[in-house]
Amino acid sequence: MSAAPALPLDLAALQTARQRIADRVLATPLWANDALSRELGAPIHLKLENLQRTGSFKLRGAAHKIDCLLRRGEAGRGVIAASAGNHAQGVAYAARGAGLAATVVMPVNAPLTKIESCRSLGAEVVLAGENLEAAREAAQALATRRGAPCIHPYDDWEIIAGQAGVGLEIVEALPAVAQIVVPLGGGGLLAGIALAVKSQRPDVRIVGVQADAVAPWRHFLTDGGIAAVPGDAHTIADGIKVKVPGELTRQVVAGLVDAIVTVDDDAIAEALVRLLERTRTLGEGAGAVGLAALMRRLVPLAADRPTVVVVSGGNADLTLIGRSIDFGLASSGRLLSIAVRLPDTPGRLAGLLGLVAEHGMNIRHVEHRRGELHVPVGMTEIILQIETRDAAHQEELLEHFGRSGLAVRRLAA
Amino acid sequence: MSAAPALPLDLAALQTARQRIADRVLATPLWANDALSRELGAPIHLKLENLQRTGSFKLRGAAHKIDCLLRRGEAGRGVIAASAGNHAQGVAYAARGAGLAATVVMPVNAPLTKIESCRSLGAEVVLAGENLEAAREAAQALATRRGAPCIHPYDDWEIIAGQAGVGLEIVEALPAVAQIVVPLGGGGLLAGIALAVKSQRPDVRIVGVQADAVAPWRHFLTDGGIAAVPGDAHTIADGIKVKVPGELTRQVVAGLVDAIVTVDDDAIAEALVRLLERTRTLGEGAGAVGLAALMRRLVPLAADRPTVVVVSGGNADLTLIGRSIDFGLASSGRLLSIAVRLPDTPGRLAGLLGLVAEHGMNIRHVEHRRGELHVPVGMTEIILQIETRDAAHQEELLEHFGRSGLAVRRLAA
Repeated sequence: MSAAPALPLDLAALQTARQRIADRVLATPLWANDALSRELGAPIHLKLENLQRTGSFKLRGAAHKIDCLLRRGEAGRGVIAASAGNHAQGVAYAARGAGLAATVVMPVNAPLTKIESCRSLGAEVVLAGENLEAAREAAQALATRRGAPCIHPYDDWEIIAGQAGVGLEIVEALPAVAQIVVPLGGGGLLAGIALAVKSQRPDVRIVGVQADAVAPWRHFLTDGGIAAVPGDAHTIADGIKVKVPGELTRQVVAGLVDAIVTVDDDAIAEALVRLLERTRTLGEGAGAVGLAALMRRLVPLAADRPTVVVVSGGNADLTLIGRSIDFGLASSGRLLSIAVRLPDTPGRLAGLLGLVAEHGMNIRHVEHRRGELHVPVGMTEIILQIETRDAAHQEELLEHFGRSGLAVRRLAA
Repeated sequence: MSAAPALPLDLAALQTARQRIADRVLATPLWANDALSRELGAPIHLKLENLQRTGSFKLRGAAHKIDCLLRRGEAGRGVIAASAGNHAQGVAYAARGAGLAATVVMPVNAPLTKIESCRSLGAEVVLAGENLEAAREAAQALATRRGAPCIHPYDDWEIIAGQAGVGLEIVEALPAVAQIVVPLGGGGLLAGIALAVKSQRPDVRIVGVQADAVAPWRHFLTDGGIAAVPGDAHTIADGIKVKVPGELTRQVVAGLVDAIVTVDDDAIAEALVRLLERTRTLGEGAGAVGLAALMRRLVPLAADRPTVVVVSGGNADLTLIGRSIDFGLASSGRLLSIAVRLPDTPGRLAGLLGLVAEHGMNIRHVEHRRGELHVPVGMTEIILQIETRDAAHQEELLEHFGRSGLAVRRLAA
């Protein structure tokens, strides 16, 4: 695999791009993580783009694109972008820094928090269209009307050149890097990193990670095809919920990327929790897919050579984070939800809770149920949510219940 | 206020300490935060010691202490520390790095996660005593028996010299700094920072922040006294839950610190949430008190000169973080819990939920109550937990309920 001479971006172009936006983006931390390295049996370093300004790598591409537009005198009427997420914030922030007007088109049902975060960055927000595709069309129409450029989130060489800075920083800070694992949606970040890294170090393995529910790139490296994604597909990794990959990014991925894997939402939620615990940083779903792939052992690791996991963003909705924590705790064996059927006589609940306490477990929630169809009269059903140490700890309790003759159903968290 | 010549640590000593442990600790990020600066009307920079190795500044002091012990040949029998928290992890990590055996004494009821995190760092964990004070006595006895040094968490000049690195890094990275706001428990971090900063820049204002429930330093700067703390005092800022400040740290604080303020747990929970949202980093309760003090306007800010907030640590228990998020969301107007009394007739609940939907609010939890003493027969009480935008959004809904003649009680979150 070579540095793909047909592609229009060489190392010098990427380095120029990086220099031009150096005062607007952070060179984010690339930190070895001892705990994850021990857990995974190989040296793991995290590239924390969730600590980037605006909370994601998207600022890099937006800042570079706007710099290019300014140099060509094409930004006089401001810039336009369609996005309900990180791209919108990147464009708004970069435009404000450049003294330009930014207009962000979002679907009419965009969350208020997203709208307000763009407004607080000085952008005009236009609500149009029932979904992101419709918002994109509206943005294009607006761009044509105003004679202002519409900034694509990934399928643009100047955007890709901006994202490439992540790869340049990794190689510079960690010359021993053997492998880089990157979230994959439209492909802008993966393409940028692949171009930056392979042009200097063709030996470094580059892996893209998609969310299983929305994985058009699934078989791309084997047959070059784009898999269809059902219209109602859902994933907590909404930042990479892209149904149709870019044309330009496909060229780069085809030539320079070594593997693509997918992870499901359970794995992503677990990775979010692990990231919080191990790095004290917040990832969004899309940001955590790389770590999820490692935790699920989907990416072979060299025991003595560093793997870098790119945590691409951290703009997670906090009202969702609590749920993810519970989900991640449950799926990593630290939260157990069960229903226990007991005769409805005094002292039985106290006995049950005493039994749980014997195992050093903390009870988070207790609920009595009576008079429901599936619970015979004279019986009561107790719903318990219990904090446990790990899956073995849970088994310990369930076996104890079994020995005590208790009827226990395990509930989904 | 001068650089307190009576104190044994001069700038050169602190710089030497910093150099000696430079390969073992991270120079943590000191980042301007646009969103917080706008919110608070002054330039705010965050010193993110929650991103330090082991998740808190405590590693600095422990690493320096162990370096000193090694230089004096006093660590041959390993080192001992009493702690159920960050000090334990700092000592375990630093000892492992130096190839020393570490023994950590924890109270018998220490959380399993804390025990396991120290074990995973290679420390021997001894459980002794009902509380931290008793564990400390046990650690001292063990140290005497073994002839090994017991490392105090704060009241030791060599520990204080290690923590001072935080202050040196701040002045170096941000010479324009006007004020530094620091969590205050035993006083090691505050004393270290005060020594490092005031010896170079006596004009920089230094402020300590305590948790209101455990605030022995409360009146210290006015009358030199230590306030009594009730035995059962509780705060979510357990990292600064220190009832008796150090003797050495008192000398430094008396001479060099400009103000001490206190914040309650509500403010701390709000600050934890704000920190997650604005920095994508996780703070523990103790780590967030500085930001809490700013959000409560307890520390005057200069509109044109930078204030640095030290986020001292991020080892928050995740099973508690979800609750803090809910608490913080509730106290910042984004989660509303109410009880609404309705006639128990068909269609009333649907109507109620429709009314909530009109305000663009998301319902998180619904519960029917019947047959309770405070609910008249023929009536039902509906408990709703609703996600809202802010306090004004909540008032909007409550007024609408009022106009509709509904009996509504507001519940504590």
